[in-house]
Amino acid sequence: MPKIAALDHIAIACPDLDVALAFWQQQLGLTCSHVEELPARGIKVAFLPVGDTRIELVAPLHDKSEVSKFLADRGGGIHHIALRTPTVDADVQEMADKGARIAQPPSPGAHDCRVAFVHPKSTGGVLLELSTPPANATH
Amino acid sequence: MPKIAALDHIAIACPDLDVALAFWQQQLGLTCSHVEELPARGIKVAFLPVGDTRIELVAPLHDKSEVSKFLADRGGGIHHIALRTPTVDADVQEMADKGARIAQPPSPGAHDCRVAFVHPKSTGGVLLELSTPPANATH
Repeated sequence: MPKIAALDHIAIACPDLDVALAFWQQQLGLTCSHVEELPARGIKVAFLPVGDTRIELVAPLHDKSEVSKFLADRGGGIHHIALRTPTVDADVQEMADKGARIAQPPSPGAHDCRVAFVHPKSTGGVLLELSTPPANATH
Repeated sequence: MPKIAALDHIAIACPDLDVALAFWQQQLGLTCSHVEELPARGIKVAFLPVGDTRIELVAPLHDKSEVSKFLADRGGGIHHIALRTPTVDADVQEMADKGARIAQPPSPGAHDCRVAFVHPKSTGGVLLELSTPPANATH
């Protein structure tokens, strides 16, 4: 069973990172703490801390990005939630053994985390990320 | 400008509360802390703390509930996110003055909170709740 330590982040897909950052900062008073490009996933992300969790804004770098289909279908919105666990590999294996469909096996994510995705078909409609931070993480 | 204190919760709409509770508790090891019926909104909710925030599972009490159309359209998934603020009435008024579309003005919610909803058209596709806990709240 995963030992979930926190809600790591909520990811919100947006067509334009600057437009989305303006909304969450200027209308809601949040502050952006980190921006990172992840070319292997075709995305650029920005993090805005809130309490002990974060909103992650996710924008496409090109039209083959991992959020492009979602944006084409829905025009933006909540893309996934991520739970922080110390043991993503074992957790995903255990969930798969119990019948869960793994949308993406563990691989490198933002902040050098190791991340995996469980398919919405196995979670009641939620694209669910499990994320294990690197040993030297400070967040 | 709102003074956002925390992510109060992520709401996940589900057709059957017991099925959803079984998944989040038995597959992910979370614990249900509170269940409440809100007849005025046509829903029953369950809260599962994670870090300093909570997952809120939302199931319909009948087919006119506030999640029934979402469930009919999507079959379940992330319905909204809620940010905690001490001043929901002033915040919503200020957002409306800046042009935001308010989907539901401040009214009573779970845990005796006062809650309002900003329409996804004004947030980049996210149904956004602002929630002010009662003065005697412990969560």
